Amino acid sequence: MCVYRLKVDWGYMSLLEYMADHFAARLPSMSKTFELETLKMRLGDAALAHLDLHLRIQRALRSLVLEGALAPGQKLPGTRVLASSLGLARDTVESAYEQLHRDGFIVRRQGSGSYVRDSLGAPLKGMARGRSAPAGPAMAGAAGAGLSQRGQAIFDSGGIADQQVARAFATGLPETRSFPADVWQRLQRQVLRDHRSQVLLHGDPLGAQPLREAIAAYLNLERGARVDAAQILVLSSTRQALFLCGLLLADAGQGVAIEDPGYFGARKAFEAAQARLVPIPVDEQGLRMDALRALGRGVRCVYVTPSHQYPTGVTLSLERRLELVRWAAESGAWIVEDDYDSEFHYDGLPTACVQGLDAQQRTLYVGTFGKTLYPGLRMGYMVLPPPLIQAFAHARSIMDGHTPQALQLTAARFMEEGHYNAHIRAMRKLYAARRQAMFEAVGRHLQPVVQAALPQGGMQLPCYLRPGFSEQKTIRQAAAAGLHLSGLSRLYQGPRKREGWLLGYAAMSEHEIVSAVARLARALAA
Amino acid sequence: MCVYRLKVDWGYMSLLEYMADHFAARLPSMSKTFELETLKMRLGDAALAHLDLHLRIQRALRSLVLEGALAPGQKLPGTRVLASSLGLARDTVESAYEQLHRDGFIVRRQGSGSYVRDSLGAPLKGMARGRSAPAGPAMAGAAGAGLSQRGQAIFDSGGIADQQVARAFATGLPETRSFPADVWQRLQRQVLRDHRSQVLLHGDPLGAQPLREAIAAYLNLERGARVDAAQILVLSSTRQALFLCGLLLADAGQGVAIEDPGYFGARKAFEAAQARLVPIPVDEQGLRMDALRALGRGVRCVYVTPSHQYPTGVTLSLERRLELVRWAAESGAWIVEDDYDSEFHYDGLPTACVQGLDAQQRTLYVGTFGKTLYPGLRMGYMVLPPPLIQAFAHARSIMDGHTPQALQLTAARFMEEGHYNAHIRAMRKLYAARRQAMFEAVGRHLQPVVQAALPQGGMQLPCYLRPGFSEQKTIRQAAAAGLHLSGLSRLYQGPRKREGWLLGYAAMSEHEIVSAVARLARALAA
Repeated sequence: MCVYRLKVDWGYMSLLEYMADHFAARLPSMSKTFELETLKMRLGDAALAHLDLHLRIQRALRSLVLEGALAPGQKLPGTRVLASSLGLARDTVESAYEQLHRDGFIVRRQGSGSYVRDSLGAPLKGMARGRSAPAGPAMAGAAGAGLSQRGQAIFDSGGIADQQVARAFATGLPETRSFPADVWQRLQRQVLRDHRSQVLLHGDPLGAQPLREAIAAYLNLERGARVDAAQILVLSSTRQALFLCGLLLADAGQGVAIEDPGYFGARKAFEAAQARLVPIPVDEQGLRMDALRALGRGVRCVYVTPSHQYPTGVTLSLERRLELVRWAAESGAWIVEDDYDSEFHYDGLPTACVQGLDAQQRTLYVGTFGKTLYPGLRMGYMVLPPPLIQAFAHARSIMDGHTPQALQLTAARFMEEGHYNAHIRAMRKLYAARRQAMFEAVGRHLQPVVQAALPQGGMQLPCYLRPGFSEQKTIRQAAAAGLHLSGLSRLYQGPRKREGWLLGYAAMSEHEIVSAVARLARALAA
Repeated sequence: MCVYRLKVDWGYMSLLEYMADHFAARLPSMSKTFELETLKMRLGDAALAHLDLHLRIQRALRSLVLEGALAPGQKLPGTRVLASSLGLARDTVESAYEQLHRDGFIVRRQGSGSYVRDSLGAPLKGMARGRSAPAGPAMAGAAGAGLSQRGQAIFDSGGIADQQVARAFATGLPETRSFPADVWQRLQRQVLRDHRSQVLLHGDPLGAQPLREAIAAYLNLERGARVDAAQILVLSSTRQALFLCGLLLADAGQGVAIEDPGYFGARKAFEAAQARLVPIPVDEQGLRMDALRALGRGVRCVYVTPSHQYPTGVTLSLERRLELVRWAAESGAWIVEDDYDSEFHYDGLPTACVQGLDAQQRTLYVGTFGKTLYPGLRMGYMVLPPPLIQAFAHARSIMDGHTPQALQLTAARFMEEGHYNAHIRAMRKLYAARRQAMFEAVGRHLQPVVQAALPQGGMQLPCYLRPGFSEQKTIRQAAAAGLHLSGLSRLYQGPRKREGWLLGYAAMSEHEIVSAVARLARALAA
């Protein structure tokens, strides 16, 4: 590439060095080798090598003007002179000048040459190399400088850190190695062949009709729901569903009741919508209805995980379910039912969902494909009471439009053709064995350290530390051995926290489980 | 299917009729033929026909219990009796009873039979068929019953209605017929082969690294930006970017300056985040900086479309760009630069973006693949000033996680291999010809009705109605002829509105354009 030899002989500096230095000064995070990296990026695309060059020249000249190194009124070298001194075709330089002219940086006078424009106002020299921002209210504060208060709160919350690699004992990860990716791809090709324009154009914010119908049929038959396809809203995830609930059901500062201990993702989603969270204790029957009733009309909605409560794994009893439905009808509040992992219930069929018991339709049902298909897909859904459907659709259309069409239509076929139920059945069998293997391995190797509570379903085993053991310390010891432990105490909002871990088992083979638990035991003994 | 002959002979009613009636009562919107539809859904999956049957029985019995038709303590028929009267295998009925038992609806006494449980509390009979919701503060209001105030506002906003079919004269639609879908699919297959686990598992909320690098390189070379890949946040759309800006940069009620006339999608996104919008007039040089300065420190950020202002199509002059950058540095406010359609600039290269001029890094740059690739893809991106990167990443991780991995990695390859630039070049050529065709056709057929303003770029032609013509009326006349006209006046927030239309031309062939404009002329003459 001639670019490596590129030199400027008319008094400034090597453009390459200039640019590298220039960018480096602008962004400390940016490496000095920036130019070479970009060049590497471009090598694949020969057609742009030329554009690349003249753009680099134009860009460097522009910076010099902006910083006042080239003063207003100053004359630029003629294109022929510059071209020869750069060892480039004249039209390369010419097009750089033309762009500078079009952008308004220079004026070109017939027969007299090109000059930096006078009317650009004060050169930005002062600011050009400045890295520190000017004083100003918006710039107060540290890392989140210039954020709004709620922006700062979201920054402080730390967000939600998903497990991006499958390792022991990551929670919430399904077994992706046995996902039938070839079937999925075949269906995706069919979808693009059969619905090309629908796939490429915009879709309904509520979701693609075939998928909405497949989901409704699934929920009616498998989850005991009472759903019509018109009530289904296809989303990208459970969190999006919960954020929408916070946004649409509670104003800033209004109460949202939430299980304690409970799912941190739900807490953060409702907090991001500025709801005021009201923790409700959980016992062996699930959510404590007496505590909920004690709030009177103080909350707009309650978040529950009835199938197996997160993280305790207990199932909300039928009495409590019916009482919850009555409470919602009487108080005019909403029930947000997160039916996560209900597909993976190992002792017989899962209990039917609350939505199916709620004749008054005060229940918003939330489900996800993130565990039953795969997390990278980004697809979930809600069942909405009819009066709420349009508001949620409008909110989705404003916040991000809809879920990619190709993925929705592929998921619909995957369900229609029975692959979905077949995959769930296979995974349920697999996970049941892995749950057992994890429970036994913990009993065998970690008896003195923790007490495990065998959950009826789901993808993780709650383990409560015995007296004398510290959650923080054990997590550190495990991390040192390359093992990930998610602590339980952070899932409690009230003062009464229990220490322990959640051990994910769904993404690990039985062999991997046994050896990882043994490694954990050794790490803690050390 | 034996299901059609299914009858209950022990005193209630046909389960099929019962269920249909039952569901219909629950959901007026639900058709009486619901059962048959669900059955149709299931026919493909023979393995479930059995499960289907016993579930239907269990579900019907459950409803009868919930409504008190089967009273607490009442004895159920023996499984053998019911099975024979239904003409089914006994184990079908047995499993239905077993599920009812597991769910806690019935108790089964060895040798004595099955009874409805006593402890279920008051039967829900009263509510069971009730369609009207109980009184209560949360139920006040009409369609949006039970929404929060901001939820009601979002409902009232009407959301954003995207064009889901390509028709004359839909705006914002690219030419999808010539999208190289086969290349895209080939790359997608490669991606799944080379990055299977990465595709299936969770991704970085900031986006997939290869795509972030490809975007950064593209912006630096094609848009005159000053960007490092670490500043790129991959999103699902421009709206998601704008909603995040509203959420993180301004608290509820704080000022966000926005072009007037301006993009309604931006207005709704910022309003959904409860920002207070401050309209700033636009003239032939773009945003009026004097009006912006007059606000003093009254706004947290300003939304601008510098490449070609929406909807007027004017390009923000260099003087204004530099002044905008100075204003942001002095006032400590943020610039939100929506560089929409900048790829489609027809008179030479587009002017470089504001972000590249802003040495103080007060600019958040917003771009989308919705027009350069296709709308159904749902992919866009932002360039963030370093102090804001983490806050936006956290917000994205809470709101919906990340954009699907497979799509991100495919887009990265599409860019790396030069297909992206090639496709944009081809479309730019195509759209330039279509812009010309639309401009000439309007001049030829609609001269007396509108004055068209040839934009330097973009995908739609602004047409201003001449005195004596009404926007509402012409839109109605066109609609009657099956032609879609987007009105201009709704894009104005201030009292001074101009009437007219935006005519989308990118998705129509030159022939389609000419005939559609002729049809429009006839429709308006009628």
